[in-house]
Amino acid sequence: MRNLVVAQSGGPTPVINNTLRGIVESARRFRAIGKVYGARHGIEGVLKEELLDLTAQPQEEIALLRYTPAAGSIGTCRYKLRPNQTEDYERVIEVFRAHQVGYFLYIGGNDSMDTAEKIALLAQERGLELVVVGAPKTIDNDVGDAEFRLIDHTPGYGSVARYWMHKVQEANEENAGSAPADPVLVMQAMGRRIGFIPAAARLADPQREMPLLIRLAESPCPLAQLADAVNDCLRRAGRCLLVISEGFDVGESGVLKDAFGHAAYGSAKYSVAQVVVNYLNQVGLPCKGAARWNVPGTDQRHSIFYASTVDLDEAYRVGEKAVELAAAGQGGFMATILRNPSTIYTVHYDKAPLRAVANSERTFPAHWITLDGNDVTDDFVRYARPLVGDDLPHVPLCDGRLRFARLQPLYVERKLPAYVPQADRK
Amino acid sequence: MRNLVVAQSGGPTPVINNTLRGIVESARRFRAIGKVYGARHGIEGVLKEELLDLTAQPQEEIALLRYTPAAGSIGTCRYKLRPNQTEDYERVIEVFRAHQVGYFLYIGGNDSMDTAEKIALLAQERGLELVVVGAPKTIDNDVGDAEFRLIDHTPGYGSVARYWMHKVQEANEENAGSAPADPVLVMQAMGRRIGFIPAAARLADPQREMPLLIRLAESPCPLAQLADAVNDCLRRAGRCLLVISEGFDVGESGVLKDAFGHAAYGSAKYSVAQVVVNYLNQVGLPCKGAARWNVPGTDQRHSIFYASTVDLDEAYRVGEKAVELAAAGQGGFMATILRNPSTIYTVHYDKAPLRAVANSERTFPAHWITLDGNDVTDDFVRYARPLVGDDLPHVPLCDGRLRFARLQPLYVERKLPAYVPQADRK
Repeated sequence: MRNLVVAQSGGPTPVINNTLRGIVESARRFRAIGKVYGARHGIEGVLKEELLDLTAQPQEEIALLRYTPAAGSIGTCRYKLRPNQTEDYERVIEVFRAHQVGYFLYIGGNDSMDTAEKIALLAQERGLELVVVGAPKTIDNDVGDAEFRLIDHTPGYGSVARYWMHKVQEANEENAGSAPADPVLVMQAMGRRIGFIPAAARLADPQREMPLLIRLAESPCPLAQLADAVNDCLRRAGRCLLVISEGFDVGESGVLKDAFGHAAYGSAKYSVAQVVVNYLNQVGLPCKGAARWNVPGTDQRHSIFYASTVDLDEAYRVGEKAVELAAAGQGGFMATILRNPSTIYTVHYDKAPLRAVANSERTFPAHWITLDGNDVTDDFVRYARPLVGDDLPHVPLCDGRLRFARLQPLYVERKLPAYVPQADRK
Repeated sequence: MRNLVVAQSGGPTPVINNTLRGIVESARRFRAIGKVYGARHGIEGVLKEELLDLTAQPQEEIALLRYTPAAGSIGTCRYKLRPNQTEDYERVIEVFRAHQVGYFLYIGGNDSMDTAEKIALLAQERGLELVVVGAPKTIDNDVGDAEFRLIDHTPGYGSVARYWMHKVQEANEENAGSAPADPVLVMQAMGRRIGFIPAAARLADPQREMPLLIRLAESPCPLAQLADAVNDCLRRAGRCLLVISEGFDVGESGVLKDAFGHAAYGSAKYSVAQVVVNYLNQVGLPCKGAARWNVPGTDQRHSIFYASTVDLDEAYRVGEKAVELAAAGQGGFMATILRNPSTIYTVHYDKAPLRAVANSERTFPAHWITLDGNDVTDDFVRYARPLVGDDLPHVPLCDGRLRFARLQPLYVERKLPAYVPQADRK
């Protein structure tokens, strides 16, 4: 019987804790698996030997992970194990050996699967019996291949898709009501390079009744062209909703400069939405009123009220599948979700080699963007619609506040000397 | 039997349609009241004779107004009837006379109550029998007097308060999980001058366990002092949540310049959150990682999932009370909500003279701000906590989408020549 370490990497999602819950709850079913330890703040927690005993937690708190968004429970990290950080890799093996760890489950995206594979190879070299399995997670839906063969979608995406579906419906009520004064509302969506997130705005209006424009990072255009599209919309409908990717290239055509005199467009110092709105207000709108903008930022990846029930369930099942693979000794794989060929949405859970995932790159299919670049197609809607689910999560409250899981600080006793991760050394 | 016109003014709230619903549904009970007409886009709809027949709408759609946020149904406006726009005032009387209107209900804030009173006086002068009643509405909670005697709170505020309570709880999960990479999260709240909205963030953490700072427009300080407070928080907790009013004065101490070389701080071209975050990232945080920001913007006033059940009900009852006042011939008043003196939260509905409301100005009590200006007090928490309610609204979906009320375009036939509102003339 050997212990299991689970770690999370990268940005959180509203459902990431469900994969964690799926792992903790299903690990109980396997005699080969001992305790489940959560590495605090991802791989950094392994390096620092900060391992939270998840098996010893109250079962009620583990169950409450269902409705606890983001990664506050065991934390996530952006710490990268780079190939030349060999000491870090050796330390991981050392920590696993010290704590009788035989299973390592890594929840993350493409990069994380690459790291997971490297750890698996080194364990083999060092004679440590270690089964390494990945579990996918990202709101961006950019894990896997462009043809959706390795994986249909990633846990996390369905919830952010529901977020944009419902947010745009709500914003349409605002915009319709306030149009004479504020005819243009620009909303900035996450996803620097890949357009799955802003594309989901179309789910708000599959019949195309709203004055809604959607511009992905994949369909850049000059600001003047974007302003023309907005103005066309205003002339036609008297108002306009624009959902735009944070990675939309606003070029250098503008006039804003930062303190160093550099054109500030597209730099992190100004949001894309702000630049677009400033441009619209400068060039002048054809009607009274001004453009305004919303940038929800991290809110779209940690709003539990917008979690998709389908996504909540699938995230759990992916964790369960990863444990099943681990218990069966099937290391070197990532658990996957594949859609069954049918008009009714059903999925099955499968596996893909870590190497294949690490080397893959999902892009937003070019044929899902309309020719004018201002919208996405019905094919995208058919793909994304089932992922948002048909009903609402039953979020528990306590004294009016959200009742999130509160894990107890049951840290495993350290067995090794303290260690400073390589990238943290001065 | 005379008809009733209802109009809305100013920014929307998640519950404004409930006041409308309360008016439409309770007007049916009074024989003296004929049809209920909704003026499209507020007083502008009266001037343009755009009156939507609300009595003839399907009752199901009127019922669905409960879960339809913002003002998309009959619209709101920012059109102001200024004292010198005498033609506009005369036109209002003319339209009311032409459509046998005997009741005018105006949903809005202080300014709207002033307009309502002027219309009432002119009607009297012109010999038109018209009962004018106001219904309060604003997320800012700035209607009424500073001592809470005229009105305890305004419909709309409880929902935006719940929004910030739950958003900050969610953001705390994000921040706790992502802290090593993104230790500071700045969130910008609405309310340019009055701090009730950002103050509600404290409801997320009445025990003060989170590393949460709250800065209202009422407690301005230099950016350097704000950065010190954030850095103290980082040294103590390793992370920091800052909720800041959009009206917080960021001064001119920064380095950002707009295209004209003017210091851009505090101008509408940059958000306060962006300026603060740029400053924090420039002066350097004491730990790794960067500050980031969320500006939900209009989202906070049209998110139906965050509507307070208490607020939903009270907004309805305020509309009902306004109709009761109107039917009783009690013109010149605004319907109000007053809290009963008890430890258990209960309210009663009353009235205040339009003149008293128009002349009043509610401010955020100075003694509810802590001495260091970084927080609000427990007295504020005791005031605001009951307003957010204890449970969640049952928001209806249809095919996964929000099922909002869809009013039919049943416009009353025009009886007068077309009219261009004075402020719209070239």
